[in-house]
Amino acid sequence: MSSLKTVIDSVPGFKVAGVACGLKKHTQLDLALIVSDQPCTVAGVFTRNAVKAAPLHICMDRLARNPNGIHALVINTGSANAMTGEQGLQDAQETTQIAAQALGLHADDVLVLSTGVIGQRLKMDKIVSGIQAAAADLGNNWHRAASAIMTTDTMPKTVSICVQHPSGATYTIAGIAKGAGMIAPNMGTMLSVIVTDAALTVEQANHVLHHATDATFNRIVIDGDTSTNDAVLLMANGVSGITIDTPDALAQFETAFTQICRYLAHWIVRDGEGVTKFITVRVDGAPDDNAARQIAYTIATSPLVKTAFYGNDANWGRIVAAAGRAGIPIDQNKIRLYIAPGVDTIENYLLLVENGTPTDYDEAHATRIIEQSDVTVTLELGLGHGTATIWTTDFSHDYVSINADYRT
Amino acid sequence: MSSLKTVIDSVPGFKVAGVACGLKKHTQLDLALIVSDQPCTVAGVFTRNAVKAAPLHICMDRLARNPNGIHALVINTGSANAMTGEQGLQDAQETTQIAAQALGLHADDVLVLSTGVIGQRLKMDKIVSGIQAAAADLGNNWHRAASAIMTTDTMPKTVSICVQHPSGATYTIAGIAKGAGMIAPNMGTMLSVIVTDAALTVEQANHVLHHATDATFNRIVIDGDTSTNDAVLLMANGVSGITIDTPDALAQFETAFTQICRYLAHWIVRDGEGVTKFITVRVDGAPDDNAARQIAYTIATSPLVKTAFYGNDANWGRIVAAAGRAGIPIDQNKIRLYIAPGVDTIENYLLLVENGTPTDYDEAHATRIIEQSDVTVTLELGLGHGTATIWTTDFSHDYVSINADYRT
Repeated sequence: MSSLKTVIDSVPGFKVAGVACGLKKHTQLDLALIVSDQPCTVAGVFTRNAVKAAPLHICMDRLARNPNGIHALVINTGSANAMTGEQGLQDAQETTQIAAQALGLHADDVLVLSTGVIGQRLKMDKIVSGIQAAAADLGNNWHRAASAIMTTDTMPKTVSICVQHPSGATYTIAGIAKGAGMIAPNMGTMLSVIVTDAALTVEQANHVLHHATDATFNRIVIDGDTSTNDAVLLMANGVSGITIDTPDALAQFETAFTQICRYLAHWIVRDGEGVTKFITVRVDGAPDDNAARQIAYTIATSPLVKTAFYGNDANWGRIVAAAGRAGIPIDQNKIRLYIAPGVDTIENYLLLVENGTPTDYDEAHATRIIEQSDVTVTLELGLGHGTATIWTTDFSHDYVSINADYRT
Repeated sequence: MSSLKTVIDSVPGFKVAGVACGLKKHTQLDLALIVSDQPCTVAGVFTRNAVKAAPLHICMDRLARNPNGIHALVINTGSANAMTGEQGLQDAQETTQIAAQALGLHADDVLVLSTGVIGQRLKMDKIVSGIQAAAADLGNNWHRAASAIMTTDTMPKTVSICVQHPSGATYTIAGIAKGAGMIAPNMGTMLSVIVTDAALTVEQANHVLHHATDATFNRIVIDGDTSTNDAVLLMANGVSGITIDTPDALAQFETAFTQICRYLAHWIVRDGEGVTKFITVRVDGAPDDNAARQIAYTIATSPLVKTAFYGNDANWGRIVAAAGRAGIPIDQNKIRLYIAPGVDTIENYLLLVENGTPTDYDEAHATRIIEQSDVTVTLELGLGHGTATIWTTDFSHDYVSINADYRT
């Protein structure tokens, strides 16, 4: 397997475009179109928010009926097309019809995703001209397509990998993603599309997507808020002629696919609203993995923990207090806590707490670690074998500024 | 019943002091002592955080054994005496012994509460001199005592009420409180002491305290973090000679006591870290009260909702998105949402959403309401008769500044 690249040169059988059609202010790219020559097998995971945007209903319906025949995907920004009632469903449907007409397809073969402000109708005249411009500009424009799905992101996110199948032939997996706020794990995800020219069955696509999402996109947090529009799609067009025909080949695909997802998930955190740090929260020794995850998640969303990181303050008391309110019985006298510079690492760690009381660590040493842009916090509970990792951020003045002013 | 007063002139049988003994920087008041001539009946509620500070263990133990014989309470700031192991328990115990000695009492008759930084030992030499100074300065110093328990609070919080028993005699209920961060409902509370010269049984004291706390202190949120040191104590010394001898008298006491608690709870929110607004979140029409509370709590803690309020942005999409991720099945097409200026009110409301879609409200009108310092948001779900109210705040640059710099 080759290593990840942060560009997408091309994926056989896929053509994409990103255009500006006036959905966002100024002349920002705001509409993306992804088209496959061949029908794709598609798997999707969608927000678990009880309030779901109209395009997600369209996607879920089409994937239930036609998971092997998808040819194209339209993604617009500016409006989330959420809380828009029957009109919103009609607008989403019409979007797929317009794209189908422009591409010579059936509307059932087209999916649509939206991101932007909740409660605003799609501007259908702009959608029409955007789709027509995008259809006329299809090519290997992955950077433009990734740019066209950004909201408060500061940079487009693209990543690809080339995989050599046991037979010797190679296929590609490539993904784009957006998301910088309304990010919370374990409930939904954000918006990402990952394509491959390998051939997958519907079962394989769903299996791989759900496993990888649970281990990556569902383990990041920026603010604990879960969007109404989150979605991750895996689109496999089979143009390479390579089928995932053995358990080894499936394991290989899943490994490569999970790498893509993890890379995009981490990138979303690094580009989170107002972020100055990338923080790995590891919990070990919990009663079970779910308990570990719940504690790690509570630490990772705590405003007090996140503002302490922003202030370069190794304030472990807040970490322990957050762990204590996670709803899991813990024994405070068994708590062990250490910090280390880097991502998901214990190298060069500094022990701050042992047996529930502070060690005589050097505060200046702790501050030197916390000042790094990448910090790993490990909390050992000494209760069992449950373990979990969540990736999170600090909470800065800029997060407040960005979200106090978002609609203005 | 008289109305609430925000000063405490005196409470028969109680004497208090607030002194500066060097636990905090400069010459800030940092230790409070509350003493009753007569033994008190005391009820307490304590943090539900699994990590509990040492003084809370001392209080819980003494209240279990001696709920009718408490004479005094010491409260220190500077150190939370949490995550301090066996040494912390010894220090808390020693604090009560020092106070008992200074006051001619038995250590079992003295309680202790602490608030401040987690993981730091009490400075026992300062505690000794503080308690001695406080014991020498006992009187009607409620304002000084309330000042001495402040951390990031900007003002001391005192409130009292005079109640006329059906017999014609009068008694007083008076309370002090602190808390400006690490505030979350439904798990613990903050630090408050409420005293009365009425006589209560242990059962009455516990009944009234639990009911009132659940309806007031447990319904406020500043940041969603729950402290390791939260506690509310009700101390009744019976010096008025008035017993709560009839169901009517108990109802009357409970009403007055709940008013005291609500006033202090609201005050904590108004004096929350970096707060610019007081926001009432009402949820009606939920499947049941617990579901309503869970949804109201999720809205009240959402960083996106809170930053929108700070930005004077009537961004109802974020409110609905937060409701949707609360874990309660809701029907987005039944959602009705309106905002009104004021505390817990629907007067002069503006309807923003009906049947799950935006009305054609005037954005300038919505902004005029949101710009008020008191705003009530009401979300109707149309599913049942469950209802709940949570009081919360906005999320400002100053919250980040205060908590990024707290230990420095």
